[in-house]
Amino acid sequence: MLDALFKPRSVAIIGASNNPLSIGHIVMQNLLDHNFKGPIYPINPKSKFIKSFRAYTSVSEIPDEVDLVNISIKNTLVPYVLEDCGKKGVKFAIVHTAGFKEVGEEGLQLERQIVEIAHKYGMRIYGPNSQGIQNSDPAISVYANFTFVPMSPGNISIVAQSGGVGETLKLHLYRIGKGIRMYSSFGNEADVSMNEIIDYYGQDEETKVIMVHIETMKDPAGFLEVASRVTQKKPILALKTGKTSEGAVAVASHTGSLMEQDTLTEVIFKKAGVLRFHSQEDMIDAAVAFANQPVPPGDRVVIVTNTGGPAIIAVDECISAGLKMAKLSAKTKNTLKKLVFQEAIVSNPVDVVATAGPEQYGGTVEALLKDPNIDSVLLVFVTAPFVDCEGIARKLGELGKTADKPIVCQVMTIEKWQEVIRLIRASGIPVYDFAETAARTLASMTQYGQIQQRPTPTFVTFRKQKKKVEVILSKHKKEFFLSQQDVYDILSAYGIPAAKTVKVTKDKDLAKVAKEVGYPLVLKVDSESIVHKSDVGGVALGIKDESVLLSVHKKMAKKFAKHKPDFILQEHLTGGKEVIMGLKGNVGLEPTVMFGLGGVFVEVLKDVEFRLAPLSEEDAIEMIQSIKGYPILKGTRGEKPVDIDAVVDMLIRLSQLGTDFPQLDEMDLNPVFVFPKGKGAAVVDARIKLKSL
Amino acid sequence: MLDALFKPRSVAIIGASNNPLSIGHIVMQNLLDHNFKGPIYPINPKSKFIKSFRAYTSVSEIPDEVDLVNISIKNTLVPYVLEDCGKKGVKFAIVHTAGFKEVGEEGLQLERQIVEIAHKYGMRIYGPNSQGIQNSDPAISVYANFTFVPMSPGNISIVAQSGGVGETLKLHLYRIGKGIRMYSSFGNEADVSMNEIIDYYGQDEETKVIMVHIETMKDPAGFLEVASRVTQKKPILALKTGKTSEGAVAVASHTGSLMEQDTLTEVIFKKAGVLRFHSQEDMIDAAVAFANQPVPPGDRVVIVTNTGGPAIIAVDECISAGLKMAKLSAKTKNTLKKLVFQEAIVSNPVDVVATAGPEQYGGTVEALLKDPNIDSVLLVFVTAPFVDCEGIARKLGELGKTADKPIVCQVMTIEKWQEVIRLIRASGIPVYDFAETAARTLASMTQYGQIQQRPTPTFVTFRKQKKKVEVILSKHKKEFFLSQQDVYDILSAYGIPAAKTVKVTKDKDLAKVAKEVGYPLVLKVDSESIVHKSDVGGVALGIKDESVLLSVHKKMAKKFAKHKPDFILQEHLTGGKEVIMGLKGNVGLEPTVMFGLGGVFVEVLKDVEFRLAPLSEEDAIEMIQSIKGYPILKGTRGEKPVDIDAVVDMLIRLSQLGTDFPQLDEMDLNPVFVFPKGKGAAVVDARIKLKSL
Repeated sequence: MLDALFKPRSVAIIGASNNPLSIGHIVMQNLLDHNFKGPIYPINPKSKFIKSFRAYTSVSEIPDEVDLVNISIKNTLVPYVLEDCGKKGVKFAIVHTAGFKEVGEEGLQLERQIVEIAHKYGMRIYGPNSQGIQNSDPAISVYANFTFVPMSPGNISIVAQSGGVGETLKLHLYRIGKGIRMYSSFGNEADVSMNEIIDYYGQDEETKVIMVHIETMKDPAGFLEVASRVTQKKPILALKTGKTSEGAVAVASHTGSLMEQDTLTEVIFKKAGVLRFHSQEDMIDAAVAFANQPVPPGDRVVIVTNTGGPAIIAVDECISAGLKMAKLSAKTKNTLKKLVFQEAIVSNPVDVVATAGPEQYGGTVEALLKDPNIDSVLLVFVTAPFVDCEGIARKLGELGKTADKPIVCQVMTIEKWQEVIRLIRASGIPVYDFAETAARTLASMTQYGQIQQRPTPTFVTFRKQKKKVEVILSKHKKEFFLSQQDVYDILSAYGIPAAKTVKVTKDKDLAKVAKEVGYPLVLKVDSESIVHKSDVGGVALGIKDESVLLSVHKKMAKKFAKHKPDFILQEHLTGGKEVIMGLKGNVGLEPTVMFGLGGVFVEVLKDVEFRLAPLSEEDAIEMIQSIKGYPILKGTRGEKPVDIDAVVDMLIRLSQLGTDFPQLDEMDLNPVFVFPKGKGAAVVDARIKLKSL
Repeated sequence: MLDALFKPRSVAIIGASNNPLSIGHIVMQNLLDHNFKGPIYPINPKSKFIKSFRAYTSVSEIPDEVDLVNISIKNTLVPYVLEDCGKKGVKFAIVHTAGFKEVGEEGLQLERQIVEIAHKYGMRIYGPNSQGIQNSDPAISVYANFTFVPMSPGNISIVAQSGGVGETLKLHLYRIGKGIRMYSSFGNEADVSMNEIIDYYGQDEETKVIMVHIETMKDPAGFLEVASRVTQKKPILALKTGKTSEGAVAVASHTGSLMEQDTLTEVIFKKAGVLRFHSQEDMIDAAVAFANQPVPPGDRVVIVTNTGGPAIIAVDECISAGLKMAKLSAKTKNTLKKLVFQEAIVSNPVDVVATAGPEQYGGTVEALLKDPNIDSVLLVFVTAPFVDCEGIARKLGELGKTADKPIVCQVMTIEKWQEVIRLIRASGIPVYDFAETAARTLASMTQYGQIQQRPTPTFVTFRKQKKKVEVILSKHKKEFFLSQQDVYDILSAYGIPAAKTVKVTKDKDLAKVAKEVGYPLVLKVDSESIVHKSDVGGVALGIKDESVLLSVHKKMAKKFAKHKPDFILQEHLTGGKEVIMGLKGNVGLEPTVMFGLGGVFVEVLKDVEFRLAPLSEEDAIEMIQSIKGYPILKGTRGEKPVDIDAVVDMLIRLSQLGTDFPQLDEMDLNPVFVFPKGKGAAVVDARIKLKSL
């Protein structure tokens, strides 16, 4: 419960000062400028008054209860004042002060110490090295933050890991006259976490949209849990920065597993139904629409314009963003034809032409809102000097207030027609400067509509021999790469089909085993110390008969003598399409499942798709359909489709194996041959890497 | 010469009126509001005065010379007044009036008629169905346009096919206080063309940047010629709308060859060095930077910030846009370390931290501008309340005025620090709201720098038997698809290597010819009426010996009996990587050359690259390197590279064939086998379609 943080009944400012350049002064001024609805207690041992407020030397002196303190004194002094706060019964301490975890080991110790002190008294730490919080609720109006963008009430709540990014988001909402609900930039996240804040926003009835900025997720599992819950009620718009390796280096100084960080974010967002944005501006533009517009039931957009060119841009952008141009119903077309001027074009885009007045433009939008073939409406409106532009705006505003489909708008105008923008915006219709923006925004809303309408996922559980895998893995506490025999036994235990594979230990008769497997066959060296077998000549394909087998075996045995290897014989499958599947263990989270086309498709084109386990049937199908090479599996130029059902089945089994055994660090099934529809699929080579738990 | 259009000494307004909602009135008002520096003559047969101006019943009545007339009377009356104008010696007529080509055949006739009348008198038509022109040159100040965005002087000139898009561009420059030089939205382009206007802007010394909006290119060859010339002196920024097929349908009602339109635009832009943008906002943002900043000599950017998060966004975006993070020289690092606060990070991004004042922030930028390892500078600046922000802005402004490297800036601030933005902008440094914008803009400038530095292209001319091809093609005036024999003869005449291919006419001994070609070989049916041979079973691969050959031949002869086909024998090449090459004839322009990887790469992934002929060596190399699958040709996972030189050679020969013979409508070399480095390449199947010229 973060009520005492976001809805404090009283605030004390430790480090309050008459120096207008100090953080303590600025926070106090912000609270005053925004008419905080509770008492403010400046704490300063040296000054008797801060502004016109009586100052206290310590929190303990304050005669009343204190919910929240803002601390901006020297880092090493923070523990001492926290003891006072704890004793006083303060509930939350916003620590603005820097010089903690971010400066190294000593700071980290200090950070741990302050959390410990706080928890001893049941107090919570917000920060340290944090900007602060804001809540525009008129009953509270708390601006416990040292930034400068003025606050006004709204229904968008923001939580930003970077204060600079948070400030940019606030700034642009402010510039277009859009208020916010709550704001938070939480610094080092030593105690109060981003996930708690998102959860809190999720429960806040006045918050309609949540904007999140993330650099690194401290608790991915917690985020997944909270975000999955919240996105069912309201949209979460997220910006993850540090995407490129260079950007990630700027976030932290380690370069390891950078792309993994981003892939993990991506799969978590997908699973949780979080809308990812790739620019601050796009996220702000979308937030403004979500704040006041209904979510579209489908992807069919209609464009209405009174000037041609920008509507074409809107079409280009809608289509590029995945929307469909709605086909107007015959009824709507009839209505419009009676309504608009003769030069108008009754199609999609509907061009009512520049001479259209309130009756033509407004009437057109009214008719389109009633058309069941239309899910969303994009307006392009230039204030033509020869028509009643305010009349059009008034009419659009009226329609906007009651429409059950989203309406977004590009308006081209100057100061002279300010009222036009005001009238349209007042109805909740967002007004953008560019048709591109309006189109992209509708696409985001449509995407959220699809997320909300996702069918309940179908989770299939297969018969599996979990015990058998437990036994195999229990042998391998210290080893990293499993032997081929173990790998194929694990696949078999979970019903993942593989090419017939038999281990030939030294005591066995190679030729006899080969007969069982059948020619042509593949001979593979099998040793835990040889990982990339084919790269070192440890795989021989297409062995036709016994004499070839014996000669190849002899050479290989000699070559790898120092490894004292066993050997594997495998039936030589051909004629399938190569795909790859994989599993990557995550810390504190279910593993990531990977799927792609094999060979150059993965190596050169990186045409792979990731999802977080557990995979539902829908997830697996979506994964397969998401790769660019999907048409190859579906069959191009008269080729037969491959057995996609078999791939779905394998992906789900792989996902279950991953969720059952967190010690599976990496699993590569590469290649898997997929045969024509109905003929199944089979793993041809596989590798499993374990980690110690 | 468009001087009398863009620098008219006098303007007459045919259709001038006292009705404030009429086009004539609005144009006249615009001229007056912007203090046009010449006489204005309203023409109206019914009113004696328009505003306080004496009106004339006809142009012929005007006692002085008239350079330009604006016409906004009924379409059918336009021819009559044009006769008057012609007799009077008017030089240009801007026809605002609609109801010409855009309304169908009758309008088209009317349009032709007015051009004819004009040309009879040596007069030019601008439009019809046009918005008009503007020139902000203080010595002229002509706003002969019926739009509403106020004009102020600047060095960006705009030409927009869509008036709505043109207006959007003007509007946003106006909003950020940026002036323009000239503006033009030319309507139906019946006479004065977009290309002439671009050429005129190119010659205008005060125009530093040209922004172009195109829906359909009327004269692609002319555009290529003009744009290639102009981009050597100044950047052309272009937006081509109607990109998606839906968008293109909205442009015109035909759906044929839509993607071709866009591909053609793309190759023309590439050849001419035009910078293509995909949103109005991106183009405006870039124009503002080009207007006042030098072009960067290279791609190494440094980022300076006083707040962390937005700088990370800047890094992400710079890298995504193809820039490189500059490595500071040791000297610069030393200078900076002495200059900045201890908490600052001297790396790239340089984080001077929020407490940095003019000395720290300004000094840092000063030092970086001197570093030879740096080509461009991106600043992120938040107006921290506790430092001298105006001081920083003043210092940045001073540096901006003399810097020989481009500087762009994101500023995060509110009204209170308006002066900060003013000071920075006054120096010519563009100020953006988002780090993303600043980064993308630098990337565009860097791209233009690379275009300007393109080495003089190396054009190689091969020995070729042009005469031989002429003879072959002269036989085929009416035919469309060439026979295989002709195709291979043409390839051979231009030195394009192909698998050994021999035609077997009915009189020849199949087995004997086969021996010449050598086994294994390929048998192909050869008839001008069978185009997609392999799809209909007209190709047999890997024929091992004579008996197989004779049996396959018998079957095929029976199958295609009604075509009375000849046959082709071809050596059966294997072991090469499949690529495809192609040629597509353009009307009035050199053909487009295509290159890509074969098979699913082209069919599923559309991994192909286009360039306009003639190809220089550099073009051919760039084409090959541009495809996503290029690593496959270069050799992945220890594979040897293929013979890329041979591919370059073939592409250039193909390009020469295309430029020599415009009657080649389509040419597909698919597949071409490319062998390992040094082993060459060979066409394995080819198809040529002719068109009548």
